[in-house]
Amino acid sequence: MKIQILSKINSPDDVKKLSFDDMTTLADEIRYKLIETVSENGGHLAPNLGVVELTLALHRVFSSPDDQIVFDVGHQCYTHKLLTGRYDKFPTLRTKGGLSGFCRPTESEHDIFYSGHSGTSVSAGLGLAQANRIRKNNRYVVTVIGDGSFTGGMVYEALNNGGRSDAKQIIILNDNKMSISENVGAFAKYLAVIRSRPGYYSFKANTEKALSKIPLGEKIAKEIYNIKTDIKNRIYKQSTFFEDLGYRYMGPIDGHNIENLCDALESAKSINGPVLLHVITVKGKGYGHAEKSPSQFHGISRFDIDTGEPISSSESFSSEFGSFLCDHAKDDESICAITAAMGLGTGLDEFSRMFPDRFFDVGIAEEHAVTFSSGLAKNAMKPVYAVYSTFLQRCYDQIVHDVSLQKLKVILAIDRAGFVGEDGETHHGLFDVPFLNTIPDITVYSPCCYKSLKADLSSALYADEFSVAVRYPRGSAPHNIDKLKFDDICYSYYGDVKAEKVIVTYGRIAGNAIIAADTLENTALVVLNRIKPISEKAFEIIRSKKEVYFFEEGLKSGGVGEKLGSMLMESSFEGKYKITAVCDEFARQASVSDLLAEYSLDAESMIKIISGENE
Amino acid sequence: MKIQILSKINSPDDVKKLSFDDMTTLADEIRYKLIETVSENGGHLAPNLGVVELTLALHRVFSSPDDQIVFDVGHQCYTHKLLTGRYDKFPTLRTKGGLSGFCRPTESEHDIFYSGHSGTSVSAGLGLAQANRIRKNNRYVVTVIGDGSFTGGMVYEALNNGGRSDAKQIIILNDNKMSISENVGAFAKYLAVIRSRPGYYSFKANTEKALSKIPLGEKIAKEIYNIKTDIKNRIYKQSTFFEDLGYRYMGPIDGHNIENLCDALESAKSINGPVLLHVITVKGKGYGHAEKSPSQFHGISRFDIDTGEPISSSESFSSEFGSFLCDHAKDDESICAITAAMGLGTGLDEFSRMFPDRFFDVGIAEEHAVTFSSGLAKNAMKPVYAVYSTFLQRCYDQIVHDVSLQKLKVILAIDRAGFVGEDGETHHGLFDVPFLNTIPDITVYSPCCYKSLKADLSSALYADEFSVAVRYPRGSAPHNIDKLKFDDICYSYYGDVKAEKVIVTYGRIAGNAIIAADTLENTALVVLNRIKPISEKAFEIIRSKKEVYFFEEGLKSGGVGEKLGSMLMESSFEGKYKITAVCDEFARQASVSDLLAEYSLDAESMIKIISGENE
Repeated sequence: MKIQILSKINSPDDVKKLSFDDMTTLADEIRYKLIETVSENGGHLAPNLGVVELTLALHRVFSSPDDQIVFDVGHQCYTHKLLTGRYDKFPTLRTKGGLSGFCRPTESEHDIFYSGHSGTSVSAGLGLAQANRIRKNNRYVVTVIGDGSFTGGMVYEALNNGGRSDAKQIIILNDNKMSISENVGAFAKYLAVIRSRPGYYSFKANTEKALSKIPLGEKIAKEIYNIKTDIKNRIYKQSTFFEDLGYRYMGPIDGHNIENLCDALESAKSINGPVLLHVITVKGKGYGHAEKSPSQFHGISRFDIDTGEPISSSESFSSEFGSFLCDHAKDDESICAITAAMGLGTGLDEFSRMFPDRFFDVGIAEEHAVTFSSGLAKNAMKPVYAVYSTFLQRCYDQIVHDVSLQKLKVILAIDRAGFVGEDGETHHGLFDVPFLNTIPDITVYSPCCYKSLKADLSSALYADEFSVAVRYPRGSAPHNIDKLKFDDICYSYYGDVKAEKVIVTYGRIAGNAIIAADTLENTALVVLNRIKPISEKAFEIIRSKKEVYFFEEGLKSGGVGEKLGSMLMESSFEGKYKITAVCDEFARQASVSDLLAEYSLDAESMIKIISGENE
Repeated sequence: MKIQILSKINSPDDVKKLSFDDMTTLADEIRYKLIETVSENGGHLAPNLGVVELTLALHRVFSSPDDQIVFDVGHQCYTHKLLTGRYDKFPTLRTKGGLSGFCRPTESEHDIFYSGHSGTSVSAGLGLAQANRIRKNNRYVVTVIGDGSFTGGMVYEALNNGGRSDAKQIIILNDNKMSISENVGAFAKYLAVIRSRPGYYSFKANTEKALSKIPLGEKIAKEIYNIKTDIKNRIYKQSTFFEDLGYRYMGPIDGHNIENLCDALESAKSINGPVLLHVITVKGKGYGHAEKSPSQFHGISRFDIDTGEPISSSESFSSEFGSFLCDHAKDDESICAITAAMGLGTGLDEFSRMFPDRFFDVGIAEEHAVTFSSGLAKNAMKPVYAVYSTFLQRCYDQIVHDVSLQKLKVILAIDRAGFVGEDGETHHGLFDVPFLNTIPDITVYSPCCYKSLKADLSSALYADEFSVAVRYPRGSAPHNIDKLKFDDICYSYYGDVKAEKVIVTYGRIAGNAIIAADTLENTALVVLNRIKPISEKAFEIIRSKKEVYFFEEGLKSGGVGEKLGSMLMESSFEGKYKITAVCDEFARQASVSDLLAEYSLDAESMIKIISGENE
């Protein structure tokens, strides 16, 4: 396809100048660009294909950045990026130094909030709107949020707060019947009901037809006004759910008809007080493979445009976890699996088919997932909650209050621990170790290979007394990891027993540490498998060395390195101690290997640090 | 009042044997006991007075502990405790070694879940119910939850999940128009609407009257059946909100009529699938002062039964915070105050009256509060979110993702930091320092006196670049704290400059440390005011000593003591280092001074540890 219009769009002002016909052509060009770029760089495809027309309409009716458009989970903001001066940079999407796959305020004044976690947009938007109200300016705040995010509780907290306020916030419910997987729960069922009702525009069309037949005259005009008001009320009164929460409801509206969308947005603009505009879109719209398998094309790695097939795939910690759980659930009927809308990503697909009775997809409801798991545990089930590290942050209080304090055994299977690569700052799993370190009684494993992953899960299911977290990275185990022998579930010692220097680490970077230990003289390696608590035996070995080098693919603050450092200090260790970790910042997007090098966690950096070249 | 029935109730079985008349007398006796005990020991009075009849009815209709009754925020469980074999121990409520003021599973098999944080009961109950379904037993799960908790998002996550499930869970919505303060938000408004409708029993009474007039006969019987069904449908169809979420709705019901309550609970028992029973109660019922001022009597210290007046009261960190904020908000119109239903407890009462336009009570919605504050900050306001330490745990991800990552300035005013005393394990503020330690760029102050509290808040509002947390304890500053001089906002040095031993600490226990430093020879004191980051100057002073003793009123794991220990280790400090803190456990209830002694944070313990008597 030849890009003719899109390449000339330098700002939202250029969108405002187009005819509706040109906008339709522009929509096609945008879709072409989206498919082309994501097939190369990977990314979120299906959600972005669904909101092309909606985003065009938004930038036609509103004036960003004066009017503030807040995208929930920014992975639906690609069109927004293309329309706000970032077309030229778009091929750099999700690469090191390139455009983010999410909203990023430092990238553009049109990106209002970083958003990689679900359900934050209504709260943030309400804050913006209240500030506007206090400051008495006339800026509009528009929040674009998918129906999937409505399975999360934060949205309700915000609706409860905003529905009764006089702040001007327009919420666009982008209803594609999906969150990441097909949507679950009572709210999805409710939306299905209101989707089937006659919408805003079929009402409107019929009315105008009817009205046009009525002869003119002053009395008649008043009648018409009354009829219009009545119809308006009927339209707004269609959804009691949102109205019960205080919102003026408009919808449902076809989310792929730009003209209708613009018209509806203008109406929404003119209404005083909080409005919810319900827009129906098709996830994956315009790309056959994605429309057919929207879950698969939600977030995807590089793929072949013609076949829709991913270009590479291999075994991974996720798939090993999934098959382990299936194997054991056959014999052990107490095993349950819980996911917060991440069944596919966490490797639970097969489990969900084999054991539908014990598989619970609770929606994007991480907090509920933990406490729900506690309930299962209390009544003698073995709940395994599979969750990405970054999203587990949502459950901190529930892990404290509903798991640890209760002394119940909930197993947290934490996927995407450590760097995740191209999804960038909102998605790296760098916080879980520091925050789990604060939880009483929880045991934390960080396996570096599939064998220890399975041993850890076994221990979690059948040996450990209280709750257990098993955390592992995205992707596969290091190729050289078989050099390690885990005779003890707590740690593995590698190298000369008499070595005076020791590398201490855990997780996948053990692979790099092996190379470093092999290269350096007088240097052994301790790979921790159980990182909380650190075993006394491993500690005594470490303490017996003269120089200890700790490498951590995670935050330094509150991490295992600091914990070990403090233990050494309290035990009057007199040798040298050095921690290399991610220091108090959000790592940006880049490939995992680039990130490891950037934070000195690759073999080369390890060697340099230990041999003193970096000092 | 002479206790005649209550003293003979040893288990719920005894409740089942009583006549309804006796139950009414029992309710009076329970109220007497509640008022008597709480006036002596302090505790949650108004919520418990509201659910006396409801709890009686629950224990009559259900068979605890086979049937599982889960109380949301356990502070409404006192009657439950009195009916489940804990009458004799009731005078020990909230004292060291005594009964908990919340549900505590280790105390009784009738207490299913620890619950001190709001909104967990529906999730936990659903987990219990799903386990029952899988295990095919016929146990009932009943969740008792106040309307206040419905302002929190977790409840919706659970309803969304449960409303479409076939697990058997009965949810009792205890609607007293209040959470802690008067309830806010759209949902409260909605409840006000349905409360005004004719309820379950007025329908029922009218129908039975009508039905009794109809002559008998087979055909008539069928008619009656049809009418009954129709009425039933009308009753159940009253609330579309809960029905949209998949629940069979019954209500509203008078929560102080035991017979009606029993009848309704029996009906709820017989319905297949999820049920929501809406019960109207009066918070503080039966004690005039509490009915009149339910917020004041929500959670209360010792008071005089006749006058309702608290027995002691004095200045506190909370009140100093509140007056500081009011003073500055007069001139600085960008200052906003946010609370999650804790306006009174956090000292914001006056602010809410003086600046209603910039005061936001968002309901029990801690997560939303943080992200909402971010929104305000983005549009140039200065949001100050006042929150109890224990409840801030709910916002961990929002602080990471919506505050720290955004580089916006949200000020967290963290009250009840450290031990809170009698509220016990669910309420101590021991986690905030460790988890805030993991947050990039946030500055954390822990003032030990009002003067530094104000300096810290000033710095937060006008000097610091990014987000700031100012944390302070419940109650007042130590009486001897003026001995310290904070010439530097980061720390204060006290004692002989040449001393070789140093105590390092922060927060209110600085008062004890002063005594210890005064008593011991060769011992100085560094009190940190800014605990994140630790200032280099303070660090160098500490590092220059031979022995460093760190005392921390918080968790050891991830705390400032470990951070400092690791820093010392990495800087090759060769002296002695010892941390005294709360080691990896949940502290129980006791007075703050008892707890400080228990964890060796009182002056006497400090002296013993430093002089080596404890080794």
